[in-house]
Amino acid sequence: MSQVYAARRARLHDQYSAAGSEAALVSRPANVRYLCGDAPPGATLLLGPVQDVLVAPEASSWGPGAGPHPEDLRLLVLSGPDGDPAVAAADLAAADGAESLAVEEHHLTVARHRAVGSAAPRLRLADLGRAVEQLRIVKDDEEISCMRIAGELADQALGELLESILVGRTERHLALELERRLVDHGADGPAFPTVVAAGPHAGRAGHLPTDRRVEEGDFLTICLGADYRGYRCQVGRTFVIGPSPADWQVELYDVVFAAQRAGREALLPGVAYRDVDRVTRQVLDAAGYGEGLETRTGHGVGLEIDEDPRLSPSAMGKLDACVPVTVEPGVHLPGRGGVRIDDTLVVRPEADGGPELLTITTKELLAL
Amino acid sequence: MSQVYAARRARLHDQYSAAGSEAALVSRPANVRYLCGDAPPGATLLLGPVQDVLVAPEASSWGPGAGPHPEDLRLLVLSGPDGDPAVAAADLAAADGAESLAVEEHHLTVARHRAVGSAAPRLRLADLGRAVEQLRIVKDDEEISCMRIAGELADQALGELLESILVGRTERHLALELERRLVDHGADGPAFPTVVAAGPHAGRAGHLPTDRRVEEGDFLTICLGADYRGYRCQVGRTFVIGPSPADWQVELYDVVFAAQRAGREALLPGVAYRDVDRVTRQVLDAAGYGEGLETRTGHGVGLEIDEDPRLSPSAMGKLDACVPVTVEPGVHLPGRGGVRIDDTLVVRPEADGGPELLTITTKELLAL
Repeated sequence: MSQVYAARRARLHDQYSAAGSEAALVSRPANVRYLCGDAPPGATLLLGPVQDVLVAPEASSWGPGAGPHPEDLRLLVLSGPDGDPAVAAADLAAADGAESLAVEEHHLTVARHRAVGSAAPRLRLADLGRAVEQLRIVKDDEEISCMRIAGELADQALGELLESILVGRTERHLALELERRLVDHGADGPAFPTVVAAGPHAGRAGHLPTDRRVEEGDFLTICLGADYRGYRCQVGRTFVIGPSPADWQVELYDVVFAAQRAGREALLPGVAYRDVDRVTRQVLDAAGYGEGLETRTGHGVGLEIDEDPRLSPSAMGKLDACVPVTVEPGVHLPGRGGVRIDDTLVVRPEADGGPELLTITTKELLAL
Repeated sequence: MSQVYAARRARLHDQYSAAGSEAALVSRPANVRYLCGDAPPGATLLLGPVQDVLVAPEASSWGPGAGPHPEDLRLLVLSGPDGDPAVAAADLAAADGAESLAVEEHHLTVARHRAVGSAAPRLRLADLGRAVEQLRIVKDDEEISCMRIAGELADQALGELLESILVGRTERHLALELERRLVDHGADGPAFPTVVAAGPHAGRAGHLPTDRRVEEGDFLTICLGADYRGYRCQVGRTFVIGPSPADWQVELYDVVFAAQRAGREALLPGVAYRDVDRVTRQVLDAAGYGEGLETRTGHGVGLEIDEDPRLSPSAMGKLDACVPVTVEPGVHLPGRGGVRIDDTLVVRPEADGGPELLTITTKELLAL
């Protein structure tokens, strides 16, 4: 595995060198993890002119031996509680003769940036920008297989919950049960706070579970994901509680389902991000639900649940093969509830069968 | 309640005005919450020359009506997905005639700070520093009563767990069960990721639960906390699994217990932070466990689980009445495990009975 990380660091090295920096300091946690595997919390990675060093805060906060790290990377653990790994890394870069250092200005705070500059005043600080985030967009086979397992775990937890009695239980309870099941089956944890949204809450993105109990006649939206070895996925479904759905529920569900299918089918290499969003959105628009929609209908997913690319009307860029994204349109009618359907898929060429669905829970409208 | 927030904002206003700024922009989430109550995720608070405005990102990500906010505060919700509330707030400050704006340089990233500067180029940006964090140190009665409830919830969850069979269950399972019980009893969630550390893991701070099963003869360290209306607490205990503890376990436990008691008893108004740390630490030192100790033995707690002050050898400052802190010494012996005992207490004058213990689970060494 350690060659994988070394290769990723080499690609990043080519980029910041071409942009005129001799060293780079990576501080955003998911970026550090991408470039060197599991790392202690708060660790900062220096790609230096002489050596690459993972600088970790004092050991007591994470326990010695916590983060396994590739053998080709030096690990420096700070001894005091007040040391900032970013500052220590900049010191090292300067000591190794670097005159310029690219840092993640979208992650470092103004105060840390100033501390880095003061510690190594002869170092010219530049902006690394979102270079690592860009590298992370296209996933390799190992990453995708982690995400495939994350998808299976989420499907499994959801499938089991649906076999139990739901009426009378609170959103909060159901969310906790789902998270317990995820971990029981081998997830490292939930990929994000589980959404359970009943009745008037259904269909709302990112709804935080409340004490609302599930009632007959409700729409019930559940959205969950697993974290497996750092990689995440997301599955969301909406159900009807009771023997049979009302007409308005069937009609609304069909519209969101059609929108979501349009988005999924658009996932091919070379398609513009905004076009995936457009085909999804226009189904909702045409059915009269264009008002109050969220500003995007999907997003990239991997080491973070919400990463590049964004599938929205203003997004720039085109899909590549091996890019995992969510497609997750939703409609929420204030006071009545609504429908959301989320899947995680990997973009694949048509010759390989088109998009690979990682979350296979049925999308038929189930009456539970 | 809204007068409470208005009064806090007025105190902050006095501070940044005295420092020469006409307006302030508060972006750190716990600080925003402190100054205006529950706020939508990502919201930024402007204390302006003419009006105070809570600027929230687009509504779809939090649901309209999510964050209740005091009536005396204007709420501005951005319409697009790309808008940064900090930038919009700076715009407003400039439009209202401010020439200077204090921002939280320890929270704003370099990239956001630059965006704020570009959006309002005539605004002189200054540093608000940790002014809000300083205001947050001394708690009012309302805050302390939330923390008291958070302590009761954590004690309750822990007490119930101790009545069940522990041998053979994994750390991960026990942690999930504790978190479920917290929520069952009315917590808004765990205050931080629950620590369950068995056998060789016991005594380690911030240990993340693994698949290690609890075995006869283990030390078992459990550390958990509840979040109640945003306020947190922390309780940690170490148990022995089996009919009776070994001699080394009793001896180690007694030392950590004595250290923790010394720390608790030192919590009086006017005592230096570092002296609380010193009396705790010197018990461990004297018993020969001075090597490899953590660099602090406690910390402030409130809207965040780990906030000012820090109880460490290098900390500057003295305790005030009504400051809640943890006292949490621990010793970890590599390969064998160890002991941690954590409590949350509120500093009170001796005339009022001395420190108020919020987490009352017994600290006798229980053999389970």
